[in-house]
Amino acid sequence: MNVLVINCGSSSLKFQLINSQSEQVLAKGLCERIGIDGSLTYQPEGQDKIKEAKAMPTHTEAIQFVIEALTDPATGVVKDLKEIGAVGHRVVHGGEAFASSVVITEEVLAAIEDCNDLAPLHNPANLIGIRACMELMPGTPMVAVFDTAFHQTMPEKAYMYGLPYDYYKNYKVRRYGFHGTSHSFVSKRAAEIFGKPCEEVKTIVCHLGNGASVCAVDGGKSVDTSMGLTPLEGLVMGTRSGDIDPAILEFLAKKEGLDITGLMNMLNKKSGVFGLSGNLSSDFRDLETAADEGNPLAKAALEVFAYRVAKYVGSYAAAMNGVDVIAFTAGIGENASIVREMVLEYLGYLGITLDSEANKGRGKEIRISTEDSNVLVMVIPTNEELAIARETVALV
Amino acid sequence: MNVLVINCGSSSLKFQLINSQSEQVLAKGLCERIGIDGSLTYQPEGQDKIKEAKAMPTHTEAIQFVIEALTDPATGVVKDLKEIGAVGHRVVHGGEAFASSVVITEEVLAAIEDCNDLAPLHNPANLIGIRACMELMPGTPMVAVFDTAFHQTMPEKAYMYGLPYDYYKNYKVRRYGFHGTSHSFVSKRAAEIFGKPCEEVKTIVCHLGNGASVCAVDGGKSVDTSMGLTPLEGLVMGTRSGDIDPAILEFLAKKEGLDITGLMNMLNKKSGVFGLSGNLSSDFRDLETAADEGNPLAKAALEVFAYRVAKYVGSYAAAMNGVDVIAFTAGIGENASIVREMVLEYLGYLGITLDSEANKGRGKEIRISTEDSNVLVMVIPTNEELAIARETVALV
Repeated sequence: MNVLVINCGSSSLKFQLINSQSEQVLAKGLCERIGIDGSLTYQPEGQDKIKEAKAMPTHTEAIQFVIEALTDPATGVVKDLKEIGAVGHRVVHGGEAFASSVVITEEVLAAIEDCNDLAPLHNPANLIGIRACMELMPGTPMVAVFDTAFHQTMPEKAYMYGLPYDYYKNYKVRRYGFHGTSHSFVSKRAAEIFGKPCEEVKTIVCHLGNGASVCAVDGGKSVDTSMGLTPLEGLVMGTRSGDIDPAILEFLAKKEGLDITGLMNMLNKKSGVFGLSGNLSSDFRDLETAADEGNPLAKAALEVFAYRVAKYVGSYAAAMNGVDVIAFTAGIGENASIVREMVLEYLGYLGITLDSEANKGRGKEIRISTEDSNVLVMVIPTNEELAIARETVALV
Repeated sequence: MNVLVINCGSSSLKFQLINSQSEQVLAKGLCERIGIDGSLTYQPEGQDKIKEAKAMPTHTEAIQFVIEALTDPATGVVKDLKEIGAVGHRVVHGGEAFASSVVITEEVLAAIEDCNDLAPLHNPANLIGIRACMELMPGTPMVAVFDTAFHQTMPEKAYMYGLPYDYYKNYKVRRYGFHGTSHSFVSKRAAEIFGKPCEEVKTIVCHLGNGASVCAVDGGKSVDTSMGLTPLEGLVMGTRSGDIDPAILEFLAKKEGLDITGLMNMLNKKSGVFGLSGNLSSDFRDLETAADEGNPLAKAALEVFAYRVAKYVGSYAAAMNGVDVIAFTAGIGENASIVREMVLEYLGYLGITLDSEANKGRGKEIRISTEDSNVLVMVIPTNEELAIARETVALV
C-alpha cells in the first residue's frame, strides 16, 4: 500500500508518499506560505526538486497541488488517487485522550480539538490539514499519529508537576512529552540491535535536533521524557531555553518590561544555544566553526548543551535503575560527532568508553561505544515519516 | 570566643550564642512579629524556653532584647557584651560578588545591597539585622556568611541558563544556588568519614528540608546545585514547585487569570508536596501518615518527591562522572527514613545497597549503605549555625 504522510503546520505542509511494502519514499515535498502566497516543492525519488509558486489561499489548495503533483502524468509517481491507500497525519498533542495512533472519525476530530488549548499553535493547524485531506480524498482512510501518544505510559511520579493538584484535575496540567514517534522508532530499533526483546531492555534515546528531548524507555515503554506540558521544557535547544528557574520570568518581566506573551516568545525563539552564543546561530555547524575559531560564547553554548544532555542521561539511568542502550538520533544526534563525544565524556562511570574512530561516522547506524563497554551506545537515524506510515498501515 | 549567630528575616530573627572552642550552644532563641507587636523566645542551654511578649517596632529593639536576655543576671549566659567576640550574620544572596564569607565593612554592606534585586525578600531584611547589630554592638567584628558563596565555584556550563546572553551580562541572570553553608558543612564531614582528603572525593549532598536542594561537590568544590537564580528551582519542596515547564506559567495565567506576581505566589507557597497532596500538608510526617492510611495524593506526593531527588542524584553522578559519597541532611533527610529508602531504591545501578536496619536511625550520623556498596551513603546532620560560627571565628 502507498501511504501519504502529512505534517501540517499553520502555513506549511510537509508530505511523503511511502510504499509500505518496500518502505521506499516514492516522492516528497513541501508547501510553504499557505494563506500568504504559496509555493510547492516536489521531489520524486531519485529526481531533482521542482519548486513552483502556486496560489494557496488555504490548506485545501495546498493538498490539491500535492495530489496533482503525485498524479501528474510527467512527474507523478502514481496514476491516480486510488493508488494512495491511506493517509497518516502527524498530530502534535493528543493529551490524555490518545495513548496510540487512531483511525480518524468525527469523534476523534472532536477529541483532538479538545486538546487545542494544550498546543494552540499546532493542533488547530493539524486539524485544518486533516479536514482539507478528508474533503479531497473522501473514502481514503486517515490515521492520526500523535507526538505525545508514546509517552502516555509514563507513571504518575514522572508526569506530575509539583503544583496544586487541582491544576491537573481541572486543566490536565502535566508532563506529556513530544517526539514520541521518533523515541518509539529509535528505541525499538535499539532493542533489535541490542539483541533482546524490547521488554527486557532499558534504553535512553537522545533526540537532538533543533527541538531536542531525551526519553527513558523501559521495557519498550516511555517512562520519562524531558519535554513537558509543551515542547519548551527540558534540554537547551536551538532557540528554546529548556529548563530554567521559573522565578526568572518575574525577574525579567520587571527588568525588561515584558508581559507573559513577550517572555514566552523570548524563551521559545531567542533563547537556547542561539541566545547563549550571543545570537550567533542556532545551527550547531556554525557554533562548532565559531568555537574552533576561539569564540568563547559559541564554545560555552556547546558545553552547556552537552552537559545538559549528559545530566538527563544520568537522571534517566537513575529513573530506570540502570541503562542498557543509549541512542543518539535526529540532526545533531546523527551528525555532530563532537557533541556525542562531549556527552560521553561524562559517562565513564556507567562503564562507557567512546570508540573515537567509529564516532567519526554520521547519519547512519553506528556503534560508538567500545566492545568492552557496559552500555551499548549507538547512533540510530530516526525516520518519523516511516514510523507514521507503519502506524497507519497497521490500523487500516 | 563566643560568637553570636544571627539569621534575620523581614519580621523575625533567629539567634544562637556559640562557644567556638567547645562548639557548644550557650543559648538560642527567636524574635517574632517584629514591626507588628513582638515576642521573644529565649532558651539557655539545658534550661526551659522562656517566651515573652515584648514591643519590637524595629529590629533594633529585637536585638536589644536578645542582648538583654543573654546578659541577664538571672537567665543570661554571659556577664556583659564584651564576652561576645564576634557576630556571624547569615546573608541569603551574595551574587557574584562574594565567593566566601567576609568581615563586614561599609563597602561590603553596599555590595550586599547591590544584590537586593536578586533576593528582594531576604537581603534587605538581612541588612536591617546587620545595621541594628552594628548600632548596638559598636566595635564588635561582624561577618557575613552567604547562602550562595559556596556555589561560586560552579563552572559556566552549570551556572548558565539557555537564555539570551545579554541577560547574564546586564543583569547577572544565572544559577547561584542556596543552602551553601549546609552543603559545605556536610560535604566536608562526608569527606572526613570517607577517609580521604576532600580534594579526592566526589560527594552528592541532599539537603532535604522544607526548602530542599541537591549539590554536587567535586574535590571540595560545589560544581552544580539544583536551586537557581532563586530558591524556587530544583526539587519539589514543601510548598515550592521546583522544576516545571516554564510555559505552564502562560497556560495558567490564561486559565486562572493570574498575573506574574500571583503565579509566583502560587509556585512558592501553594505548590510542592502541599499542592500535590491536594493541600493536605507540607509536613512529611503528615504525608507519611496519610499515605499509610491510603490517601492516594499523599502517596503520590511522596513518590514524586523521592523520584525527583533520585533523578538529581543521577544527573550529578553524570556531572562529576561518578560519585563516592551520598549524604542526606536537614529535617527530612535526617529523619524521614522512608524517603531515604525510596530514593535509594533507584540507585542500585550505582552499586548501592540499603542497610535497612541502619536506615531506621534518625537525626544522627549513620551509614545507611551496606559495607559492600560501591558508594558510601550517609545521614549527616547539618548545623548551619555552627558552620556560620566557624566561618566567623576564622575571619576575626
